Amino acid sequence: MISTTSLFTPVDPDLRILTDNLKKLIGARHPILGAAAEHLFSAGGKRVRPAVVLLVSRATMLEREITPRHRRLAEITEMIHTASLVHDDVVDEADLRRNVPTVNSLFDNRIAVLAGDFLFAQSSWYLANLDNLEVVKLLSEVIRDFAEGEILQGLSRYNSDLSIEQYLEKSYYKTASLIANSAKAAGLLSEVASEVADSLYDYGRYLGLAFQIVDDIFDFTGSTEVLGKPVGSDLASGHITAPVLYALEEKPYLETLIEREFSEEGDLEKALTIIKESKGIERARQLATAHAQMALQSITCLTPSPSAQALKDLTDYVLSRLY
Amino acid sequence: MISTTSLFTPVDPDLRILTDNLKKLIGARHPILGAAAEHLFSAGGKRVRPAVVLLVSRATMLEREITPRHRRLAEITEMIHTASLVHDDVVDEADLRRNVPTVNSLFDNRIAVLAGDFLFAQSSWYLANLDNLEVVKLLSEVIRDFAEGEILQGLSRYNSDLSIEQYLEKSYYKTASLIANSAKAAGLLSEVASEVADSLYDYGRYLGLAFQIVDDIFDFTGSTEVLGKPVGSDLASGHITAPVLYALEEKPYLETLIEREFSEEGDLEKALTIIKESKGIERARQLATAHAQMALQSITCLTPSPSAQALKDLTDYVLSRLY
Repeated sequence: MISTTSLFTPVDPDLRILTDNLKKLIGARHPILGAAAEHLFSAGGKRVRPAVVLLVSRATMLEREITPRHRRLAEITEMIHTASLVHDDVVDEADLRRNVPTVNSLFDNRIAVLAGDFLFAQSSWYLANLDNLEVVKLLSEVIRDFAEGEILQGLSRYNSDLSIEQYLEKSYYKTASLIANSAKAAGLLSEVASEVADSLYDYGRYLGLAFQIVDDIFDFTGSTEVLGKPVGSDLASGHITAPVLYALEEKPYLETLIEREFSEEGDLEKALTIIKESKGIERARQLATAHAQMALQSITCLTPSPSAQALKDLTDYVLSRLY
Repeated sequence: MISTTSLFTPVDPDLRILTDNLKKLIGARHPILGAAAEHLFSAGGKRVRPAVVLLVSRATMLEREITPRHRRLAEITEMIHTASLVHDDVVDEADLRRNVPTVNSLFDNRIAVLAGDFLFAQSSWYLANLDNLEVVKLLSEVIRDFAEGEILQGLSRYNSDLSIEQYLEKSYYKTASLIANSAKAAGLLSEVASEVADSLYDYGRYLGLAFQIVDDIFDFTGSTEVLGKPVGSDLASGHITAPVLYALEEKPYLETLIEREFSEEGDLEKALTIIKESKGIERARQLATAHAQMALQSITCLTPSPSAQALKDLTDYVLSRLY
């Protein structure tokens, strides 16, 4: 398995600057949020989103140095992502994320709502000050998509009638929109041609969907240790994902278990066994692979460079996490 | 006492369109938020903020009809205001606002965080689509100021060392920033000269501060019925406002009560009596009056029109609520 660290070599120094900036940005001005900020930005996140922005920036600037605006865009991307996680955890009443206590559990809902609002607000403000209306539109679309995704997710809990298309739509809102729109925005800051900007958007969209599908497979195949939460947690909360949807086509009894929200003793265990014995996980893997390949094909237009290569390798890395 | 209804006559039809639009905007697309939206936008709010935007729009367009962008700005203003109230009520764990149950008490924190996020997100998106970078910057400043205000408020609870300047700064973030920046933005959409835009900002700033000071006086002079919450609620939660700060200059014992957070039997009642017997309320009234007068003086530059007159009358109305 490739580590993300080696993948991100072309932007390693950039990512270190980014982490420092993010901590300073919040902690220094507001002691009340300082502890939360330290916690949020040190939590060993993989920094995939800002890394993609920085790699796209370097891959499109080539010989030219990337600008402070490219860096600021990467920071905005990570701020929006973090803000959405903090509010998600309030909404889901989650205590742990990747084995680390959430802000709402460590502090309380009050601080978590404030910290999320502050991050969203700060990112809107930085965004406006990038002085590029098209970039403002792309990223404000993302913030809207997050809210939309959370609502769709709420509406589709324990809904076994969900289609694969609806599942992908929800995953786009939740995960792919940020990667797609910020990759395109990085291209726009480098003043690429509009076809290239659209290809970067497609790359981010397919990559983001592949990431989400793989994450959803992990809910069934991961270990509690790696997941930082019990196997089947997402299913238990009613999140109907690709492996479940494919399994439902083969095993109608699964529907009964879902519709009664696993309310009877042993329901969840039965559902997990059914899904593992079905072709659901294998078919979800194929879906992830198809999306990763489409991501790769989207950026054949990029001039070869270490950063362009890293973006390509990232499509392999997503899948390598499955094996 | 003048009613706001007659004050807003020049924009009455505009305000009706606005209310309909706001309800449609949220309810139609998301049944899960429909009930919350109906509740939020029917709650009999005074619509002061969008009314100011619409009055400034008409006062600066004069013979010309106001544009869809002016209307959209008024909607954005009310959405940002409502979003901030919804999250405030989660942060403050409030059950009632103006005698109406809050979203967090009627539904739960989950729906309240989501509804607030959706409103902020929707307003950012509409904002970006006004296609005016200067307006985007002004309103994103407001969103940031709200978060800042909430944090300052948290930091200054039960802090009797607060200065009047710090109190006014906090009130600017919480209340005046939205009115000031949206009034200026409305002027910019009408393409007024930059001195006029700055005067509109000053008007909104002084008017907003006067409003907040008057609201803070009501915590001591209002009836539970009118306030929709018990007299002295803000003080009990540790909000140190103008009447309290002035009273502290005369009555040092008040400091003891505040510092121990009214933890002993009868502390709050003692504090309320001390404040009422001091010159605190009268001096806070003078502070509000001075701000209302500065608001009035800021817009002497406007060409006479029914809308300009309504903006001027509004500075009287703020104070008339006190008598």
